[in-house]
Amino acid sequence: MKRFIILGSTGSIGTSSLDVIARNPGLFTAVGLAAGNSAEIMAEQVERFRPEAISLRNTEAVAMISGLVGKKLPVYDGDDGILELIRSCQADAVINGLVGSAGVLPTLTALEAGMDVLLANKETMVMAGEIVMNTARRLGRRIVPIDSEMSAIYQCLKGESSESIKRLVLTASGGPFVDTAADDLAKVTVEQALKHPTWSMGVKNTIDSATMMNKGLEVIEASWLFDTPGDKIDVAIHRDSIVHSFVEYIDGSLLCQLSKPDMRLAIQYAMTDPNRVQSSFGGLDFDRCFSLTFEPPDMDRFPCLAIAYEALMRGGTAPAAMNGANERAVEVFVEGKIGFNDIPRIIRAVVDKHPYRKDPVIDDLIETDIVSKRYVEEMVSE
Amino acid sequence: MKRFIILGSTGSIGTSSLDVIARNPGLFTAVGLAAGNSAEIMAEQVERFRPEAISLRNTEAVAMISGLVGKKLPVYDGDDGILELIRSCQADAVINGLVGSAGVLPTLTALEAGMDVLLANKETMVMAGEIVMNTARRLGRRIVPIDSEMSAIYQCLKGESSESIKRLVLTASGGPFVDTAADDLAKVTVEQALKHPTWSMGVKNTIDSATMMNKGLEVIEASWLFDTPGDKIDVAIHRDSIVHSFVEYIDGSLLCQLSKPDMRLAIQYAMTDPNRVQSSFGGLDFDRCFSLTFEPPDMDRFPCLAIAYEALMRGGTAPAAMNGANERAVEVFVEGKIGFNDIPRIIRAVVDKHPYRKDPVIDDLIETDIVSKRYVEEMVSE
Repeated sequence: MKRFIILGSTGSIGTSSLDVIARNPGLFTAVGLAAGNSAEIMAEQVERFRPEAISLRNTEAVAMISGLVGKKLPVYDGDDGILELIRSCQADAVINGLVGSAGVLPTLTALEAGMDVLLANKETMVMAGEIVMNTARRLGRRIVPIDSEMSAIYQCLKGESSESIKRLVLTASGGPFVDTAADDLAKVTVEQALKHPTWSMGVKNTIDSATMMNKGLEVIEASWLFDTPGDKIDVAIHRDSIVHSFVEYIDGSLLCQLSKPDMRLAIQYAMTDPNRVQSSFGGLDFDRCFSLTFEPPDMDRFPCLAIAYEALMRGGTAPAAMNGANERAVEVFVEGKIGFNDIPRIIRAVVDKHPYRKDPVIDDLIETDIVSKRYVEEMVSE
Repeated sequence: MKRFIILGSTGSIGTSSLDVIARNPGLFTAVGLAAGNSAEIMAEQVERFRPEAISLRNTEAVAMISGLVGKKLPVYDGDDGILELIRSCQADAVINGLVGSAGVLPTLTALEAGMDVLLANKETMVMAGEIVMNTARRLGRRIVPIDSEMSAIYQCLKGESSESIKRLVLTASGGPFVDTAADDLAKVTVEQALKHPTWSMGVKNTIDSATMMNKGLEVIEASWLFDTPGDKIDVAIHRDSIVHSFVEYIDGSLLCQLSKPDMRLAIQYAMTDPNRVQSSFGGLDFDRCFSLTFEPPDMDRFPCLAIAYEALMRGGTAPAAMNGANERAVEVFVEGKIGFNDIPRIIRAVVDKHPYRKDPVIDDLIETDIVSKRYVEEMVSE
């Protein structure tokens, strides 16, 4: 029985992870759950999955859950509650389904507590990929990606060495604005941006997908996860969302991983890696005709992608500044305070303006994140 | 330096293998070459690759090559010459690029001499897959496939266990008659059948591709190579010949291997497995738009595919009878003695008529091959 702590248990990745656990009762168990303020959903999850401990960030939510589930298990709270939960639970792995920069410290804490990390939180790798990978290596723990694209590459690389990689090609659905003319992008609404053609995800990821920053974050994430420089990582628009990414090897052979889109597939794979167990997800129907199409991305209409490549190339605090600025820019866009094309404009300005450091430690990166978000705030209120 | 013996060195697989060796002079060397009767090409290969010994099946060719290259190396001849060559050379692996049932005994001889076999000769596995795989297992030697489709599956299965296989999906170009109506198939000419849309291969493989028996042979080959029953092996028509085959796993994830079509890629992979080295073959261009299309096969128009599935299911001598009948039927078709649709008709009649054995030894299979070819002869001369 593999024991998991699920961070962000009431979110999109968290509920999918619990669904996979519920479908494999003999294999997996959820021993710890962490959420922000969704006390009612958490109370249901506690009833159903019987974790040994939970954490809630929001103090009111903590008060509410005591009313709902009583005092039958420890409830950690506040900003450090999630770290206390990780340190107190005996688990094999943490499933990190947190959104944004909040995922970094829990990832490092889990590694230090001797657990593997199944990582959906790409911002962890964007902010602090080098530190996270070095920590995992030093402690002999694994970072197994949960993101469909990263999982695809991870699966393709099984039994291969990173020296054999010629390049990685990340597929992108292109988001809701793949065919929108440059001029029209300035006018798109929040509602339009929240309509993703193929994947059902949380708000942050859906907007990131519309700006293609999502793919930019993945380029940086892939660079660290698979020890591959940015100039060996390409992006292909693939509207069908069937091929989840490619690896091209030095001998000219490519492998790719495919399935009908379902995030539970990558989650389950990460939980069973290097083995596989039956599921009812994914698959592909060869009894009918179908096509898979690929197009080069348009970096002019989607400058976030270019910004991410530049930040990766520059290194140091640049990706963390970009990530922090993006996180806050997405929020103010959803709040209706800026337009769609302001997102890349603001991010670029923040990356240029932030106090750059070449070899940051983790505190520098957290500081960069905070400063970058404050810069966005200032720009928006100007 | 890896030492190879190349069987069928003057044919399509043989010359491609020597090209790969020539491009990697520090890695590979050809220590033995075997051909049928192409003395002049063999003489050039001897000059260029300096093997330690060669064999030629045809006695006149042996006489001719002595005139061309002198007495500077042993030349084995006759039907057993190829086996003597294998036994006399110190090599790491044999590249079996022979055509037809002639490939079986050299494969077994190479395994018994302690060599791996890099196998392009699918008829070996169709005739005697069980015996060959058991021999390889017993002697701790590997059978590494060279066929693009088999190599694709082999590469996808790296790091995976055969228990994780849900099904294999072999891609097929569909051959030159993929769009030809059933009625018109009866009238197609030898010249039309010899025009393959994407791959440049020898006569036998090209006609097999036109009848889709090629894919039928691969279904049987894959069944033995990857320990997977016929009902878990599907075929998809993929005219582009970019995706070389798929593996679907029990968890719903699929992997496939892709590249621009070039048989040297699979050959080189087999030579370096489990590692990879640089090449100028293959690759895929993501700077332009492209599509990959897949369609279900039409077993009514291409009954050879159905015959192969039936023979695999029936087992015993049935696949060897089918293979022998097909080999001779293709020859008489190329000689203009029968029509295109007579090929499956004759094969089915031979499989039904041959003296079936459930648990054949190798001599039974060789006898089945001879008998089946004779039956074809008799049917054609009736």
